[in-house]
Amino acid sequence: MDFELLKKQKTEEINAFLTAFLPEESGKEAVLCEAMKYSVAVGGKRLRPMILLEAYTMFGGTDAAAQPFAAALEMIHTYSLVHDDLPAMDNDMYRRGQLTTHAKYGEALGVLAGDGLLNYAFEVMSDAVCEQGGNGAKAMRILAKAAGVRGMIAGQTVDLEWTGKPQTRELLDYINERKTSALLCSALMAGAALAGATDAELSVLKQVGNYVGLAFQIKDDILDVIGDESKLGKPLHSDEKNEKSTYVTLIGIDGAQETVREFSDKAVELLDTLPYRNPFLKELLLSLVTREY
Amino acid sequence: MDFELLKKQKTEEINAFLTAFLPEESGKEAVLCEAMKYSVAVGGKRLRPMILLEAYTMFGGTDAAAQPFAAALEMIHTYSLVHDDLPAMDNDMYRRGQLTTHAKYGEALGVLAGDGLLNYAFEVMSDAVCEQGGNGAKAMRILAKAAGVRGMIAGQTVDLEWTGKPQTRELLDYINERKTSALLCSALMAGAALAGATDAELSVLKQVGNYVGLAFQIKDDILDVIGDESKLGKPLHSDEKNEKSTYVTLIGIDGAQETVREFSDKAVELLDTLPYRNPFLKELLLSLVTREY
Repeated sequence: MDFELLKKQKTEEINAFLTAFLPEESGKEAVLCEAMKYSVAVGGKRLRPMILLEAYTMFGGTDAAAQPFAAALEMIHTYSLVHDDLPAMDNDMYRRGQLTTHAKYGEALGVLAGDGLLNYAFEVMSDAVCEQGGNGAKAMRILAKAAGVRGMIAGQTVDLEWTGKPQTRELLDYINERKTSALLCSALMAGAALAGATDAELSVLKQVGNYVGLAFQIKDDILDVIGDESKLGKPLHSDEKNEKSTYVTLIGIDGAQETVREFSDKAVELLDTLPYRNPFLKELLLSLVTREY
Repeated sequence: MDFELLKKQKTEEINAFLTAFLPEESGKEAVLCEAMKYSVAVGGKRLRPMILLEAYTMFGGTDAAAQPFAAALEMIHTYSLVHDDLPAMDNDMYRRGQLTTHAKYGEALGVLAGDGLLNYAFEVMSDAVCEQGGNGAKAMRILAKAAGVRGMIAGQTVDLEWTGKPQTRELLDYINERKTSALLCSALMAGAALAGATDAELSVLKQVGNYVGLAFQIKDDILDVIGDESKLGKPLHSDEKNEKSTYVTLIGIDGAQETVREFSDKAVELLDTLPYRNPFLKELLLSLVTREY
């Protein structure tokens, strides 16, 4: 089947179980559940859960045991966007052409819906660990660390602290490895761990995810300058507006394009050293760095 | 040994391992770790971890296996205060006579330090589940649900949504069972679960925690009106300022005092039906509802 068609089908499958995992809009706290659901619905590409599920398949997983972890990862990714959009952080009112959560529900519910999504991710994973056993605890630990104070939250913090100050390539790498790569790495690693991958295999996947994540972020920086606003669904030049140094400001558009190619080549090379194959996963990872939106 | 002395000693023990569990102030994200540490240090009574550890002991636990869960619970409690203090929520600048996290580190770090504490709680518990095995996954699930979208976060949401609107006793109970009782219940239940308590025993502890939690919150409402500001370390009449109905506004000081007595009697009665004893835990729970600060 055609890659784009297959990806569309897989995205729909993910949307179906993701919605089923979210809490029902019931109780006096229905508005919280509604704001959580809205936040998840505004997103759309479902890259991280897709990568997790494909890594699970690649290492021989065949059942639905990875679904709660894939759903949890998307909740964690979504909460990070909801909090990042808050007035105290990036103060963004639109994402993918729709109002951000705080813009629609107010700032307090923006905080709480984000908290709810982060906590609910661990409610869902705790259920899975208690009910399924297996490698769930290991997968949960991988996702928790990637999202955590040496992972994504560290990336957000350093990004915030250094905004408007002179930045180096080393600093940008530090931020991007944490802010972007960490969750992508954890998607590959958690999926594979659930299917019983060895620690050596997880270590290779971590490097793959790191290269893809950095290339993905550099591509993001490039698209923020020369992308198509209508395809991206968000205004260009947000980095400039927020006084953020990026790979583009540091090494220019051409240098940035070259680095994207270099890193994606390295990712593919490393992926091919593994004794298992998943052509869809490989194409998916490559599509992240060749995308135009 | 005297109860107060024993409590002081146990508090110091908790402070020691709690600090050890927190992330070191290293890396470019050191300020995040510093803000997390500061947030935890501003707190002080360590009631929830103490209850968790005492429930563990009551059901026969003798080792340090409950410590990561006790530390995680205090991190969760702390994050909820940090986010609750944000300008978008209660907008409090002081807690226990010290600057709140956002007042000291800025609003963005207030958001991130809260996120960091919530996530780190699950990093610590994931480590414990992976390394210790045993009943860790069950305890983690109990804590995750109590903190979650049908627990504490639901309580915060409903509290927020109904502020300034007419409130009923039923609504207040709904809020307090989630905002206050849920974490206290989970402290009792998680500690007992770690030591192998049965589901029937956990169910009794849940009721005990619920009565204590409600009594604790009613006492809080009473102290907000007739307490000693210097002992409490925070200004009185915050409920009035925030237009919050409380048990005091609904049933008066005398009715509220009477309800506290009634609920604490019920809690003790239920606790005594269990086949195990922990006199320190009983006195600790009672002290929550007889406290003057």
